[in-house]
Amino acid sequence: MVGRDSKGKTYKADEIKKEVLDKLKKLGEKVFRDLSQGEFPELKIPSRTTKNIVYNEELKQYVLGSKMMERTTKNVRHLRPFAQLLWIAYFSKTLIKAGKTSTLRDTYYVAIGEAIDFEDQNESDEMIMELESIIGFPREDFHIFPEERASIYGDLVIEYTVPGFRGKRVDLSSHPDGFAIGPALTTAEFVKCGAEVLFVIEKGAVFSRFVEEGADKKYKALLLHTAGQSPRNARKLIRRLNEELGLPVYVFADADPYGVHIASVLIHGSALSAHIKGLNVPDAVWAGVWASDITRYKLPSMKLNDQDIKRLQELELDPRYQNDPWKREIKEFWKIKRKAELEAFSRYGLDFIVKEFLPERLAELQRR
Amino acid sequence: MVGRDSKGKTYKADEIKKEVLDKLKKLGEKVFRDLSQGEFPELKIPSRTTKNIVYNEELKQYVLGSKMMERTTKNVRHLRPFAQLLWIAYFSKTLIKAGKTSTLRDTYYVAIGEAIDFEDQNESDEMIMELESIIGFPREDFHIFPEERASIYGDLVIEYTVPGFRGKRVDLSSHPDGFAIGPALTTAEFVKCGAEVLFVIEKGAVFSRFVEEGADKKYKALLLHTAGQSPRNARKLIRRLNEELGLPVYVFADADPYGVHIASVLIHGSALSAHIKGLNVPDAVWAGVWASDITRYKLPSMKLNDQDIKRLQELELDPRYQNDPWKREIKEFWKIKRKAELEAFSRYGLDFIVKEFLPERLAELQRR
Repeated sequence: MVGRDSKGKTYKADEIKKEVLDKLKKLGEKVFRDLSQGEFPELKIPSRTTKNIVYNEELKQYVLGSKMMERTTKNVRHLRPFAQLLWIAYFSKTLIKAGKTSTLRDTYYVAIGEAIDFEDQNESDEMIMELESIIGFPREDFHIFPEERASIYGDLVIEYTVPGFRGKRVDLSSHPDGFAIGPALTTAEFVKCGAEVLFVIEKGAVFSRFVEEGADKKYKALLLHTAGQSPRNARKLIRRLNEELGLPVYVFADADPYGVHIASVLIHGSALSAHIKGLNVPDAVWAGVWASDITRYKLPSMKLNDQDIKRLQELELDPRYQNDPWKREIKEFWKIKRKAELEAFSRYGLDFIVKEFLPERLAELQRR
Repeated sequence: MVGRDSKGKTYKADEIKKEVLDKLKKLGEKVFRDLSQGEFPELKIPSRTTKNIVYNEELKQYVLGSKMMERTTKNVRHLRPFAQLLWIAYFSKTLIKAGKTSTLRDTYYVAIGEAIDFEDQNESDEMIMELESIIGFPREDFHIFPEERASIYGDLVIEYTVPGFRGKRVDLSSHPDGFAIGPALTTAEFVKCGAEVLFVIEKGAVFSRFVEEGADKKYKALLLHTAGQSPRNARKLIRRLNEELGLPVYVFADADPYGVHIASVLIHGSALSAHIKGLNVPDAVWAGVWASDITRYKLPSMKLNDQDIKRLQELELDPRYQNDPWKREIKEFWKIKRKAELEAFSRYGLDFIVKEFLPERLAELQRR
């Protein structure tokens, strides 16, 4: 399978295409029916205001509450967003049918070209999110992909489903610098996997270190480089690797409020994606670098700056950070007021992070 | 070959390793000899101050002048940078011998671990550049790589030279999202190339568009995605593809002062890399988006902001921008005071950039 809807049902690549097209068609039919019956078309749309976003303890992610809003063409002020939404739905259908992809920015430009009245890109982004909440699938499933690219390496054979490559296979262990995770990899099916665990890594330097020290072989691990905050399609891929292949996931990020958030968004999801399921990996484990590692491993560290302090105050209020290890580590940040990067382990030599830190941390996490 | 020294001589992967190790050894021997003879060790180092950076019209890149500075351990103030430089040379040798890689940031942490007195990373970066200017090879050749990753796709088979992969081959047309350009790809040898041209593309959305529209097949093109400003190792790879395989290079970037600079650094090199040859591609052609394309193609555009204006003023004074098309396009920017992105062509539909703009631009550039 390559995706899931908002109720958690899973789909294969071809099924998802059919399902999304079906839902888009139903959306159009609803409007057409209203019009044919001489009525003003109207739609019920899940409300995505902060008031309707609740943290679901069981799913361990933010989800939408039950509040719906009505958009009706009776109301002249609703006409503009109504038309915008229909155009986004039309454009998504075009993309899927043609087997082409777009990005948020790119979609905005196509809209301009077709004289669709968007004030700026924020407005078209907003409509794309609205369509996600109506259709119940993330925008990647209607072919609107992130600009940013993460990459992946390891013992996994995939089979493409995109036009021109359908049925072709590639072994992700054949290029040690990693395979960029774009539209083709995101929608590929998994064919054969020799790996038993997935390490998700924020930094390129550390990704290369893991490859060079053979962490993929020692731990039978897939290595995924997020290049900072993980793009949405990479988060979806991580979820699939966890669910479909049963790979446990360990996340390695810098010991600073930004790195903590990278790990947390991967595990708990983001508030902005509350209307989408299947982008977070509740079972993934934050493996470090922890604030407490700074003292424990005597890591070279820097003072938290004003921005870090502000971010840390925000994290303290967020429901995702009320349990350990998050709560414990935020407390530690306040205590030491310092931060450290993944590369800091290099103070003990290039191989320390793989040969010493990694087995220690994995053993520790498995004892819990 | 996979590299060249500051005199322009070219080397294969194994030769470069031997050459760099030889030069590092000679550096050590010089110091050892001075010490054995009871003299204060001293070194002559090319001066990299702005006063010694000149724009070479023939090479079309900034180069160092002939000014040398002397660093002597007689002078107590020289002792610290002298020792720092020797440590960087020692660390580089360790990396090469072990077949491992590092980054600027990572190297700084290793230095801290070995109690080398660097105030901050700027200081260790500075020493790495100094070693580049002494050895005459870019730092990638002593295994210090950029953190950022560009990626590449197309009809090219490469053979790795890194440990664990030596002799293995991969076909860069086997993954349509692109192969990340890290240490392994940078140091690989080219085995077989069916492509006849290289398109270098700033934006991920446009890279995907080129793949989806089959620009690689229509134009027998390799596609390289820089993801913003091109990382140094990607620039070196572009140069090699141009020189070794004779591929003409066309650069596509946004029509804003930042995009212009991305194209220019690729073609003319950066002032910061004046001490290094082989990172720029003098024969590469800036193919757009030009400021004049905004009017010509009626592209959706935005007003230049204060930062753009400031940047544009700087470009006007820079010797790299005194000829057309640079001069002409900067004049046009002043006239229209607007900017546009590569994705802006999508206003005419998703395939316009490949089906209409690309052949028009290539024909135009070939007529000149």
